[in-house]
Amino acid sequence: MLDELKEQVLRANLALPEHGLVTFTWGNVSGIDRETGLVVIKPSGVPYSELKKEHLVVVDLDGNKVEGNLKPSSDTPTHLVLYRAFRNIGGIVHTHSPWATSFAQAGMGIPAFGTTHADYFHGEIPCTRKMTPAEINGDYEKETGNVIVETFSGKDPMDIPAVLVNMHGPFAWGKDALDAVHNAVVLEEVAKMAFNTIMLNPKIGPMDTVLMNKHFFRKHGANAYYGQ
Amino acid sequence: MLDELKEQVLRANLALPEHGLVTFTWGNVSGIDRETGLVVIKPSGVPYSELKKEHLVVVDLDGNKVEGNLKPSSDTPTHLVLYRAFRNIGGIVHTHSPWATSFAQAGMGIPAFGTTHADYFHGEIPCTRKMTPAEINGDYEKETGNVIVETFSGKDPMDIPAVLVNMHGPFAWGKDALDAVHNAVVLEEVAKMAFNTIMLNPKIGPMDTVLMNKHFFRKHGANAYYGQ
Amino acid sequence: MLDELKEQVLRANLALPEHGLVTFTWGNVSGIDRETGLVVIKPSGVPYSELKKEHLVVVDLDGNKVEGNLKPSSDTPTHLVLYRAFRNIGGIVHTHSPWATSFAQAGMGIPAFGTTHADYFHGEIPCTRKMTPAEINGDYEKETGNVIVETFSGKDPMDIPAVLVNMHGPFAWGKDALDAVHNAVVLEEVAKMAFNTIMLNPKIGPMDTVLMNKHFFRKHGANAYYGQ
Amino acid sequence: MLDELKEQVLRANLALPEHGLVTFTWGNVSGIDRETGLVVIKPSGVPYSELKKEHLVVVDLDGNKVEGNLKPSSDTPTHLVLYRAFRNIGGIVHTHSPWATSFAQAGMGIPAFGTTHADYFHGEIPCTRKMTPAEINGDYEKETGNVIVETFSGKDPMDIPAVLVNMHGPFAWGKDALDAVHNAVVLEEVAKMAFNTIMLNPKIGPMDTVLMNKHFFRKHGANAYYGQ
Repeated sequence: MLDELKEQVLRANLALPEHGLVTFTWGNVSGIDRETGLVVIKPSGVPYSELKKEHLVVVDLDGNKVEGNLKPSSDTPTHLVLYRAFRNIGGIVHTHSPWATSFAQAGMGIPAFGTTHADYFHGEIPCTRKMTPAEINGDYEKETGNVIVETFSGKDPMDIPAVLVNMHGPFAWGKDALDAVHNAVVLEEVAKMAFNTIMLNPKIGPMDTVLMNKHFFRKHGANAYYGQ
Repeated sequence: MLDELKEQVLRANLALPEHGLVTFTWGNVSGIDRETGLVVIKPSGVPYSELKKEHLVVVDLDGNKVEGNLKPSSDTPTHLVLYRAFRNIGGIVHTHSPWATSFAQAGMGIPAFGTTHADYFHGEIPCTRKMTPAEINGDYEKETGNVIVETFSGKDPMDIPAVLVNMHGPFAWGKDALDAVHNAVVLEEVAKMAFNTIMLNPKIGPMDTVLMNKHFFRKHGANAYYGQ
Repeated sequence: MLDELKEQVLRANLALPEHGLVTFTWGNVSGIDRETGLVVIKPSGVPYSELKKEHLVVVDLDGNKVEGNLKPSSDTPTHLVLYRAFRNIGGIVHTHSPWATSFAQAGMGIPAFGTTHADYFHGEIPCTRKMTPAEINGDYEKETGNVIVETFSGKDPMDIPAVLVNMHGPFAWGKDALDAVHNAVVLEEVAKMAFNTIMLNPKIGPMDTVLMNKHFFRKHGANAYYGQ
Repeated sequence: MLDELKEQVLRANLALPEHGLVTFTWGNVSGIDRETGLVVIKPSGVPYSELKKEHLVVVDLDGNKVEGNLKPSSDTPTHLVLYRAFRNIGGIVHTHSPWATSFAQAGMGIPAFGTTHADYFHGEIPCTRKMTPAEINGDYEKETGNVIVETFSGKDPMDIPAVLVNMHGPFAWGKDALDAVHNAVVLEEVAKMAFNTIMLNPKIGPMDTVLMNKHFFRKHGANAYYGQ
């Protein structure tokens, strides 16, 4: 069942420690099969070094477990909200990668300061508002998804495939699980350089829109000309 | 004698360089057998690359050597004070890991800025007061333990399983030696991100208590639901 | 055809991830055969782990493809402008290495703060002016080369073999492709130390000219005495 | 001739890249045989990956080459001044390790902020005054040694086995070549933590003298009790 998707979700999860994005069991990746609406996700609290394909959990978009012996990631309800709201995404990754998390803890989005950013993100990577006590004490992981969706109101999530959850950390997504991890790696690199940029020149504003558009559309959309 | 405990204390000591927490022979890990009150600890000044199980030293809670050919870590009296005062801890680690030590040198605790912190530490990781000349020139390593215990007066050390000794560096603990190392790794990661957070937003205060409680109790206590 | 040059350009490209200068497919290296005026360059968007000699693309100085099945790097027009204007250079490298890119994003050159810098760069590594909307929306990659050439007006590019393109990132060059990579590595190291220097002492100015000259000419020119 | 010393100097030089202290051919280590007054030192500009025992150069304290086919390090005259002035040292290392070099570029010594520092350095690691144009344009490398010696006027160089040469970088020393490298590693670690400490708390002053003495003399002198 969903063997190819599981294979990719497994590889995507294992890519997190390879790229230095996670400590211990922190972080998780999921992928969705849009035809059946089934989501494959990492189990909760399993070390990456021991993770095997048979540990992955399959849930439907309402969160019912369809297959698997283990409990899915405790962040599963967040993933499901995002899959329901963002119809073009095929994979989601959550980490506590340190540079992106530092911006989340500072309550700041990551401004678009240069072409590295603009090659992947069409504008500032936003930080969500703080969650309310009612949201935190309610269905917390689901509400985390809701506040992300609220943050992208009126925006195309594929134009800016990442977000910082306030006082928490990043979620990134993409057309599939591996693409989501790719974006999570770029996010961390972009966050590190944005930190340095702010330290060097605290008054610097975001980059020119013309240059931002040039780079984003060099790699995305109908007129892209980067790559083979 | 205490073979299983020695095995764990050896693995815990070797985990320090694996996690990049120590330079040269800096740092040490101990574990206690609560039934007999015996403590297994690293010998002083032995390189990790040469450390073997038979080098480990066994002392009782009064500091009498019970087994071993080498001198125990010079920090042994600090460990013993903590084992006597903190009855629920089973392992202790001391390092000079750079991010945590930087906060200790700055005389600052590590504020709880985000959920990574709150997943492990229920509030600020405190920095001790400065030690007095009498304490430093007296039974220094024992007094180091005493000032840590003083810092946790009225607090449960398992709620915040680490401390920064002023102008010195961190001690962390846990239910056993490996758990203590786990917490020492998290401490360093949390210290790094707290540093970045302060640089980005010097006026940021600690995180919302509601969110902190949510995350701490998601992983600890009777209502924990993280992991399998 | 140009087998030795291709071999070097391949090695130079593979040296980028070895030195930690690139993430994913970012960055590219080229080398020129000055006799024939042919340039060997990395193809666009090919992962370094899969890059083979037969993937390299040969173009002439006007940008006509002379050999190769793949599209050359999208930055090829920038390389060609530099080869045409800077007659003594034999290799060019472009990366988004994080420290140098951070200065580019801050719109700042890298001041000569010490002898490490002066051993390779005879003065500040300049940051270009911002490009105009007309330049960005016109022949962008070619105009990127033009703004670099404008920045070096009246200077010998071999005295300062690197530049920061504003809001973008570094280009470095050298007598051949491997030398260009060597300079790109030094650039990143120098940028990191300049960042730290500014953080420690924001009012520090550039180093003494006498010391700068001493170190540059210890390694460059007729009176060099470093090395064998 | 001096086979054991050469073996140690080789190992000490190779330890520099292992500890991440050098880029390319930067840096050099020497050791002295005090009986014969002969110094073994790295040749100039030879990559560490190719360095073999037979490449090492032997010079006397006046700088005359006694053995070896290659030119000695261009910094040899600095080493010789230090060996002549500091009679208890047996090994010297020069690097451009980034944290220590950043302090040198900022023209700042490294204050003693904590016990990690005090375990090895009995007070601030000083930064030399700037060299004069006459010194720079004269016998530069010898004058570099002289300005270091001037900086230690009235101090025991074994109490503070390292210095920062202004706008240049660190020299460290020890009882032999390997001990010098050990101190160079500690210097870099201490510099990194001092940087962080200053960023966190710019008004922090140096540590208490009582605590500094306690830690230095725990490891050094007649009453040391650290190690076996």
